Amino acid sequence: MVSAASSPVIRGKMQAWVLGSPGELELVEKAVPQPGAAEVLVRIDAIAVCATDLEVIYHGPPALIEGGQPFNKKFTPGHEYMGTVVRLGPGVDEFDIGARVAVEVHAGCGRCERCREGMYTACLNYGMNYGDRNKGHRANGFTTDGGFAEYAVNHVNTLVRVPDAMSDEEATLIVTAGTAMYGLDVMGGLIAGQTLVVTGPGPIGLMGVGVAKALGAQPVILTGTHADLRRLELGRKLGADQIVNVHDEAAVAAVMRITQGKGCHYVLECSGAPNAVNEAARMLNRGGRICLAAFPQQPALIDIAYLVSNNIYLFGIRGEGRSATHRAAALMQQRRFDARLIHTHTFPLQEVPTAIRYSRERVDDAIKVVVKMSL
Amino acid sequence: MVSAASSPVIRGKMQAWVLGSPGELELVEKAVPQPGAAEVLVRIDAIAVCATDLEVIYHGPPALIEGGQPFNKKFTPGHEYMGTVVRLGPGVDEFDIGARVAVEVHAGCGRCERCREGMYTACLNYGMNYGDRNKGHRANGFTTDGGFAEYAVNHVNTLVRVPDAMSDEEATLIVTAGTAMYGLDVMGGLIAGQTLVVTGPGPIGLMGVGVAKALGAQPVILTGTHADLRRLELGRKLGADQIVNVHDEAAVAAVMRITQGKGCHYVLECSGAPNAVNEAARMLNRGGRICLAAFPQQPALIDIAYLVSNNIYLFGIRGEGRSATHRAAALMQQRRFDARLIHTHTFPLQEVPTAIRYSRERVDDAIKVVVKMSL
Amino acid sequence: MVSAASSPVIRGKMQAWVLGSPGELELVEKAVPQPGAAEVLVRIDAIAVCATDLEVIYHGPPALIEGGQPFNKKFTPGHEYMGTVVRLGPGVDEFDIGARVAVEVHAGCGRCERCREGMYTACLNYGMNYGDRNKGHRANGFTTDGGFAEYAVNHVNTLVRVPDAMSDEEATLIVTAGTAMYGLDVMGGLIAGQTLVVTGPGPIGLMGVGVAKALGAQPVILTGTHADLRRLELGRKLGADQIVNVHDEAAVAAVMRITQGKGCHYVLECSGAPNAVNEAARMLNRGGRICLAAFPQQPALIDIAYLVSNNIYLFGIRGEGRSATHRAAALMQQRRFDARLIHTHTFPLQEVPTAIRYSRERVDDAIKVVVKMSL
Amino acid sequence: MVSAASSPVIRGKMQAWVLGSPGELELVEKAVPQPGAAEVLVRIDAIAVCATDLEVIYHGPPALIEGGQPFNKKFTPGHEYMGTVVRLGPGVDEFDIGARVAVEVHAGCGRCERCREGMYTACLNYGMNYGDRNKGHRANGFTTDGGFAEYAVNHVNTLVRVPDAMSDEEATLIVTAGTAMYGLDVMGGLIAGQTLVVTGPGPIGLMGVGVAKALGAQPVILTGTHADLRRLELGRKLGADQIVNVHDEAAVAAVMRITQGKGCHYVLECSGAPNAVNEAARMLNRGGRICLAAFPQQPALIDIAYLVSNNIYLFGIRGEGRSATHRAAALMQQRRFDARLIHTHTFPLQEVPTAIRYSRERVDDAIKVVVKMSL
Repeated sequence: MVSAASSPVIRGKMQAWVLGSPGELELVEKAVPQPGAAEVLVRIDAIAVCATDLEVIYHGPPALIEGGQPFNKKFTPGHEYMGTVVRLGPGVDEFDIGARVAVEVHAGCGRCERCREGMYTACLNYGMNYGDRNKGHRANGFTTDGGFAEYAVNHVNTLVRVPDAMSDEEATLIVTAGTAMYGLDVMGGLIAGQTLVVTGPGPIGLMGVGVAKALGAQPVILTGTHADLRRLELGRKLGADQIVNVHDEAAVAAVMRITQGKGCHYVLECSGAPNAVNEAARMLNRGGRICLAAFPQQPALIDIAYLVSNNIYLFGIRGEGRSATHRAAALMQQRRFDARLIHTHTFPLQEVPTAIRYSRERVDDAIKVVVKMSL
Repeated sequence: MVSAASSPVIRGKMQAWVLGSPGELELVEKAVPQPGAAEVLVRIDAIAVCATDLEVIYHGPPALIEGGQPFNKKFTPGHEYMGTVVRLGPGVDEFDIGARVAVEVHAGCGRCERCREGMYTACLNYGMNYGDRNKGHRANGFTTDGGFAEYAVNHVNTLVRVPDAMSDEEATLIVTAGTAMYGLDVMGGLIAGQTLVVTGPGPIGLMGVGVAKALGAQPVILTGTHADLRRLELGRKLGADQIVNVHDEAAVAAVMRITQGKGCHYVLECSGAPNAVNEAARMLNRGGRICLAAFPQQPALIDIAYLVSNNIYLFGIRGEGRSATHRAAALMQQRRFDARLIHTHTFPLQEVPTAIRYSRERVDDAIKVVVKMSL
Repeated sequence: MVSAASSPVIRGKMQAWVLGSPGELELVEKAVPQPGAAEVLVRIDAIAVCATDLEVIYHGPPALIEGGQPFNKKFTPGHEYMGTVVRLGPGVDEFDIGARVAVEVHAGCGRCERCREGMYTACLNYGMNYGDRNKGHRANGFTTDGGFAEYAVNHVNTLVRVPDAMSDEEATLIVTAGTAMYGLDVMGGLIAGQTLVVTGPGPIGLMGVGVAKALGAQPVILTGTHADLRRLELGRKLGADQIVNVHDEAAVAAVMRITQGKGCHYVLECSGAPNAVNEAARMLNRGGRICLAAFPQQPALIDIAYLVSNNIYLFGIRGEGRSATHRAAALMQQRRFDARLIHTHTFPLQEVPTAIRYSRERVDDAIKVVVKMSL
Repeated sequence: MVSAASSPVIRGKMQAWVLGSPGELELVEKAVPQPGAAEVLVRIDAIAVCATDLEVIYHGPPALIEGGQPFNKKFTPGHEYMGTVVRLGPGVDEFDIGARVAVEVHAGCGRCERCREGMYTACLNYGMNYGDRNKGHRANGFTTDGGFAEYAVNHVNTLVRVPDAMSDEEATLIVTAGTAMYGLDVMGGLIAGQTLVVTGPGPIGLMGVGVAKALGAQPVILTGTHADLRRLELGRKLGADQIVNVHDEAAVAAVMRITQGKGCHYVLECSGAPNAVNEAARMLNRGGRICLAAFPQQPALIDIAYLVSNNIYLFGIRGEGRSATHRAAALMQQRRFDARLIHTHTFPLQEVPTAIRYSRERVDDAIKVVVKMSL
């Protein structure tokens, strides 16, 4: 057992990107944070760019804005990261120094009703980790400093072991796959032999294809637009049985054709399109379920009557609950699907703004852009 | 044991109201139907008018219309009924001749995936009980003949015993209370000490107040409009801890005031108002749940992003699943709430059109209008 | 759509094995049964011998004996069968004539509380399908005629489509795999990356290894005795990460060694050994779960205090509920595990007694012995 | 909002009972403990004696003994207590100074798998709150100092508000009622109108009667022995519909008589009798569920085959999970049952040994013996 006493002390300063005005990032020096009880210090080895990072960078951390606080100019974004444990806080023996870990975004406060019932991504103390009202909640890159930096402190319950044979780059996708896994979990989880439609071939959607197929869903149908041709092709490689290009055939019609008019059991909605919920509802059979892993920017016209008449359940999720990252990591370790397929570009820490631009503008058909520290 | 052999044969004709053109009902003679295997013949003693009856009468049975079939001019509407078992089909010994029973609306086909998993109100053979494609599904007053008549055949699994001490009129409310109970069930069911908002003081909403309070919810908040003053007052008698007249205070603000800013755990949405889902979402704490027991006539603008960011689950239900009517009947038998409070008017079978008018136009502040056969 | 009208009528007699005195079987002629509503006639193409068949043959159908009825000398045992749909009852369009199907053992009555909640293998009308009290429950080979015959009638909700590429012999294992799948279901179902111990490498245990591994469990540990060496080796081929021969190392100690002292999440108990529950409990971490898919002949001494102190849940199951056969069939179709490995011997219908002897006495290391009609 | 800064500092020493040799208690002075982050200091106002206290006092804290550690001579037992918040640790604003609270026994570590899934009473770091391996788990009076003392530190997530109108003595029963509530929760929770048998009229059994009746169970049957006459009578007052004195009628036979041969849905086993599980199984209908809230001292002969054949689920629980104390407290506040009925005797802190003797030897028919600080 490695005790805290034997941990090397990481002193001094580290490099970290911080928010400036909306859309601006600056590389600065910050003090290396120190782990408290139940925490470790992680040296970040790789971090992927997620679409929600763009939200934070261009519009500010949503939780803070909601609470009416000013745009935080010192905040470090980034939440899809992995690294190496380099220092242990008091009482930590779950991990040794040197352990490679991926990091879940959310650490619940552990004291509210939701945390007590296991719904820690719906922690009632979301964002409460400052000053006098520090409840210990963390959402890396949203309400606490994130991973576009050299080091980050994390709670042990957010760490997922990275298998030796998995590269740093692939390990950054554990959180993405974990979010997709959680989406399947909340819908009920008995999916082998059942029909899943994934709407939208973004990273979460593509991981959803891989996870669902690994669990035996059949058929898995992936829908996307003309602009998504490369991504749809990747979906096929990740296991999608049927690809629907909505340029060629309306998504609902295609699902009904493929399921011979029966409709599907589940929809994992990853497009955020305005009509996505209505279309999802019409893809389902009675009693079917929709998990929303994306959302439109604006309120959307929803046919509520259809949901009610057809006993449809709709689950909104934020991130990766119920320890789904552990399940996703296990499937990835077992090579049930090849998450590496969605990793398209890599940049060093100094080039975070370029990485973000590639991700945002889909430069060179970028899907998952990874920032690697030791490039 | 009463065997089928000893059952009296009910021969000849009966009186039954049938649909004519939209909005028209006609009292005709029909043959008394005969119970098959697992069925009984019920002499209808009382039936309540439900808002969905009005839909059927003015716009045709929804399932048939959906399937593109013509408006059924021979169809008998009505689904909230109770009566007396007067004849047993083969193999029935669960009930004796003379047993008083309330009747669930839905009998699942028992052979589709949903029925097999216990979700029989989402039966995949909904409406399939005619001719060559008879799968045995029944939805009284929607897809099979209903209860504005002297007799009806029903499957034994839809029957709920009516306690001796309960009047016929009260027993017609078992289905209404069962629907409210099912709404609470799908939201998770551990409700003692938790906060419930019921939006809309119609019959299901008022029964929702009674059931939730019986199960220990605290506080139970009921919202309604200026036109609902009498109903809100009944809600208080049924156990609501807080009444919100939205004429005086916005519903979301009131819920936040009452819950000291924490929001509530559950919303049972019974208003069908266009903004109801958005308001419900904003009444909830993170991870909260909404059950939709009503719906707006038109698609409504929904803030999907808010549902996703706050892990909100939305359950659409149709009717009374998971044997909830049995639970509701037990609570009514135990006098945990007084369902009789919402029964306001009574008419004989000959006056069904008047009963429907009272219900539809809220004549004399009518809430639940009951048709009693032996008046 | 094939209508009932176009079905060929299968007339006359068929060959069927029936029970004589305990331990005796006789090949006789019986009338071919005719399908009723929601039923089909299946021409049996292959049937596997299960250990519970031996119970029925040597001690009589358990349900009948329990009820005090005489040993049924005309009864046809056998429940792990597949075949071809050759006649449709009224209202059946879910399957066409010629469809290849495997058959679940249990058809619930569809009218009791348990069936209504989806627990149809716990049907409260178990065994009630005779005479005046016919509730429609069926348990093939237990309470209704089984599959050691040329034809059998079955309810459509017990049929599972057999993929074209799957052999008759393999398809007889769908029910076995379905039972293992159901065992994993009742324990909670989120198994990817979690630890499962399967105790006892009989057919259900071996299928449990295959299914759990297909769902991502990790590690899967299989225990057995010295007499099970061949079966343990098959377990490894079916995906077991660790094999424990209890001749060499005590099972509990081995599990603790493999899990580094943490214990496992789930135990699928398939040995029926007297100390199996106690050992399973000590293999688990706190809050762990045991599914019993076998049982000792005699009451066993159980350390109840240990179960209570460690929050251990124990699930007893009978057969294959929650449509688990469909999930199992999907995984088999996808070749997630090779069920064929456990099929060791094949005999024609005339040699059922030999097939049973091979199974009972493990002649030539027999595991799964299949009776094939067209050999 | 009361901040930590304004909390009065409780200095110096307090009186506390500590374990000596097995069966011996000594009243000593100890330092008043100080609350850390997420903790408060509670001034204990009342504490009830529980049967498990006797185990701890006569045989040592079970968790420590299990781990092979020496009998702890400085340990303060007692876990069913309530009191007043007198000091807040850093970051606590959920409670104000002066708040009256009851205290759940278990505080999970918040970092293990079980805590993350909401099963905090099955915390994998049970007992780990000492020295280098401090994971923050607490089990008051079992692994951390308990309540036979003037003060105790507690985690905020274990606190339950005590309503103004509830006496200190009654509030000590919130934990007892919460355990009974949790037992009903793990069995499935939809209990209105369903049959519950409570075996054993000890405090948890009696609270089980009250809670189940409050939730609408019907009938609730309570069994006990000749020595339990007074307790059985209290059970009737708490709502039991049927009382079975096993001196007069065998418990299984009585349940079958009362349920007209159908058996019951649930058994809450609170007797710890050697044959209790077998009897419970035979009281149930197929698919029924048993929660074990007590256990025999010795391993018991269990008919496993019966559990398997009848799909019976068995849940072992330890204490009060899933925030059940909050639900229990709400029902008590609403006077759904009168917990005060089981409180029979009261003693001051100085007379803890007498209180324990009354409880252990049932002196003067004692049921719940309370130690009140300010007597």
